[in-house]
Amino acid sequence: MRDVAVIGIGVTKFGELWEKSFRQLIAEAGAKAILDAGISGSEIDALYVGSMSAGRFVGQEHVGALVADCAGFSHMHIPAIRVESACASGGLALRQGFFSVASGMNDVVVVGGVEKMTDVVGSEATDTLATALDQEWEAFFGATFPGVYAMIATRHMHEYGTTREQLAQVAVKNHANGALNPYAQFKRPISLEAVMNAPLSAYPLGMLDCSPVSDGAAAVILCAGEKAKKYSDKPVRIKGSGQASDTLALHGRNEICTFESTAHAAAMAYKQAKITPKDVHVAEVHDCFTIAEILAIEDLGFVKKGEGGKAIERKVTTLDGSLPVNPSGGLKAKGHPIGATGVAQIAELVMQLRGEADKRQVPDARIGLAQNVGGGGASCLVHILEAM
Amino acid sequence: MRDVAVIGIGVTKFGELWEKSFRQLIAEAGAKAILDAGISGSEIDALYVGSMSAGRFVGQEHVGALVADCAGFSHMHIPAIRVESACASGGLALRQGFFSVASGMNDVVVVGGVEKMTDVVGSEATDTLATALDQEWEAFFGATFPGVYAMIATRHMHEYGTTREQLAQVAVKNHANGALNPYAQFKRPISLEAVMNAPLSAYPLGMLDCSPVSDGAAAVILCAGEKAKKYSDKPVRIKGSGQASDTLALHGRNEICTFESTAHAAAMAYKQAKITPKDVHVAEVHDCFTIAEILAIEDLGFVKKGEGGKAIERKVTTLDGSLPVNPSGGLKAKGHPIGATGVAQIAELVMQLRGEADKRQVPDARIGLAQNVGGGGASCLVHILEAM
Repeated sequence: MRDVAVIGIGVTKFGELWEKSFRQLIAEAGAKAILDAGISGSEIDALYVGSMSAGRFVGQEHVGALVADCAGFSHMHIPAIRVESACASGGLALRQGFFSVASGMNDVVVVGGVEKMTDVVGSEATDTLATALDQEWEAFFGATFPGVYAMIATRHMHEYGTTREQLAQVAVKNHANGALNPYAQFKRPISLEAVMNAPLSAYPLGMLDCSPVSDGAAAVILCAGEKAKKYSDKPVRIKGSGQASDTLALHGRNEICTFESTAHAAAMAYKQAKITPKDVHVAEVHDCFTIAEILAIEDLGFVKKGEGGKAIERKVTTLDGSLPVNPSGGLKAKGHPIGATGVAQIAELVMQLRGEADKRQVPDARIGLAQNVGGGGASCLVHILEAM
Repeated sequence: MRDVAVIGIGVTKFGELWEKSFRQLIAEAGAKAILDAGISGSEIDALYVGSMSAGRFVGQEHVGALVADCAGFSHMHIPAIRVESACASGGLALRQGFFSVASGMNDVVVVGGVEKMTDVVGSEATDTLATALDQEWEAFFGATFPGVYAMIATRHMHEYGTTREQLAQVAVKNHANGALNPYAQFKRPISLEAVMNAPLSAYPLGMLDCSPVSDGAAAVILCAGEKAKKYSDKPVRIKGSGQASDTLALHGRNEICTFESTAHAAAMAYKQAKITPKDVHVAEVHDCFTIAEILAIEDLGFVKKGEGGKAIERKVTTLDGSLPVNPSGGLKAKGHPIGATGVAQIAELVMQLRGEADKRQVPDARIGLAQNVGGGGASCLVHILEAM
C-alpha cells in the first residue's frame, strides 16, 4: 500500500437550496475540487460517490453514472462507483477511493458526496431517513432518528449523569463555530436558553439538538502520495482509514451508550496511522444529534466513557479548547446533506491542516480525525489526516 | 495485484417469492456460499453487496449494515460495503470485492447481490426501475425501460436489418436454457409464435421480449488465489475485470446501437485477462430485453456489429452452438432481481467452469465471461473467469 494524498477540495453551500438540483450540486463541488487541485479532468482514473437515498429523495438511482455524466466525464467512460452506508455514505466513498489509490489500481480519483433532501413533501424526509434504521424492527413500528438517539441520550443521562445542559452545550458550541463558516447552513450563534427551550423532538432532545435536513455536496481529489507535490503546495496525507459495522437495530446491542462501530473503526484507523487519540489536534465528528457528539468523543478515546458531557461543559472541545471538535459547525450548524457529510468533514480537515480555515482555524493543527456514523451506529468510518 | 479465486457460490430460487423477505433472501444465498466454500464465518474480512433500490422496493437503505447483521456478522464488526450501479450493482460489488482481495487489503470476502421487487403495488416497480434512466431528461417525461430498449431495437432493425423473429429467438433460446435450471423463475420452453404474438410492451418488444420483475439473491466467496486450493477442489480464477460508464440519457450518445460502456469494459477485462473474444467458451450476458443480448454479443466482440441477429438465427449461441450464451436462461428466463443478477451470472459461470451445470453444462468450458449492464447502458461491468 502506497501513500495517498488529498490534493483538492470543493464544497457547495449547505442549506435549503431550492434553486440547485442534485446534479448541479455535485457538479459544482467536483468542479471546485478539480480547480483547487489544478488537475485536468482527463487525468482522473475513476469516480467514487456517496449518496444515501437519491432514489427516494430525487427519484434517481444509477448515481455513479449520473455523476460521471454531469461532471463531463462520460466521453472518458471512466469507472463510476456509488456507495451507500446511510449517513456514512460519504466516508465510505472516501475509503473506497483511498484504497483504490493506495493499492495502485488508480493514480488520481475524485471522491464526492451529495444529497438533495428538501424537494420532498410532508414527512417524506423523516421517513426516508428512517430507512437507515432497521425497517422491519424499528422504522415500521414508528421509530424515527430523533426517537432512537433520544433513547441513547436518556440512557447516557441515567448511566453517567450527563445533563440536559451538557447536551445543549454541544449545539451552542457548534453554532458558534458554524457562524464562522461561510458554507454553513446556520451561520448564527444560539444561546443555551434557546436550545433548552426549543420545542421538544423526543425527550431530552429538542429541535435545536437535531441536525437539519439539507441540500449540498462536497468533493475531494486524491492522488498517489509521491505525485502530490506536483499538484499541491500543501497536500494532506490520508494516514489511516477504519470501517466497522454493528447490529442495524439498537435492541441487538449489548449496550447502547457505546457505538462499537466507532470504537472498532477508530482502532483500525489509529493502528494504520500509528498514532493514539492524544495525537489528534482537530476532529470533525458526526453530531447528527447533540448526544452523538458526546458518544463520539468517548468512543474515539478522546475522553473516558461517561466523561463526554463533562468535557463539553469544561469547554475542552471549543475552538480554543485543548481538542477542538467540529470547527466547521458540525452537522448541527453546517448542515447534514447525508451523502455529502463524510466528504465535507474531510474538506474541513484539509482546510484546517493547510492553515486555510480563516476565523475558525485551529492553531498549529497537523493531525485531524473525521468520524462519520451511519444510522444509529450500525456503520462507522474513521479517517486520520496529516499535513505533509 | 495477486490472483483472486471464487471458492464458493450460493443462489436462491428467483421468482415471485412472497414468503421470503429481502433479508431472508440474502442470508440464504450467503449461507449457501459459505457452506459451499467450506469456510468459517470468522474467516471473512469484509462484505460487499450490490442492490439497486432497496430504499424504494422495501424501504431499507443502510443495506451493507443490514446484510452484515442478518448474516450474523454484526459481532465481528466487519466492514460492509453496499454499492449501486442500477442493474449492474451485482457486477460492481464483485469488482470491488475482487480488487480488495487482489490488492492484499482482504484475504476472504463475501460478495452478495439482492433485490426484492414484488412487494410493491401498481406501477411502482416500473417507476423504480426507471430511476436507473435519467430522471430529469427521460423518466420524468414518461420514458420506461421497455420504451428505451424499443428505440434501440427499432434503430438496430433499421441500421442492420435485424428482424422481429431474430429478437424473438433470443427469448426462445433463453427459455429453453431456463427450463434446465432449477433456480430459474420460468422453467418452461416457449415457442417463437408465443413470443411473436405476446401483447406488445413497446414496439417491437412484446411481453416475452422483456425480463421479469423478480425477487432473489446470489452470493460468492472470494479468496486470495494462493489459498484457494485449501478451500476448494475446483476454484475458479477471476482473470479480468472491466468497468466503464457512458452518458446516462440515451440522447447524449453518438449512436445508440452500440453500448460503448460494454465495449470499454470488455477491452479492459480482455487486456487484464490477456485473452481475446475468441478464447471465451461460455458467456452470461445482460439480456434485460432480447435486443440487449444482440447488442451484447456484438459489443463484446463475439460477432461483428450488426451481425448479432443473424448469429442468433444461425444458433451460434445455443447450448450446443459454438459460443453458448446465457446457459442459465439469462435474465429473461432465470429472472432479474436487479442487484442479484451480476452475482448470479458469476455463480452460473462457476458452475459451468466446475463442470457442475448438469443438463445445461457447456462441454469443456474453461473460460467464461459475464457482462452486466446498468440501466440503458450508462454503466457496464465485464468479468472473465477461468477454471484453475
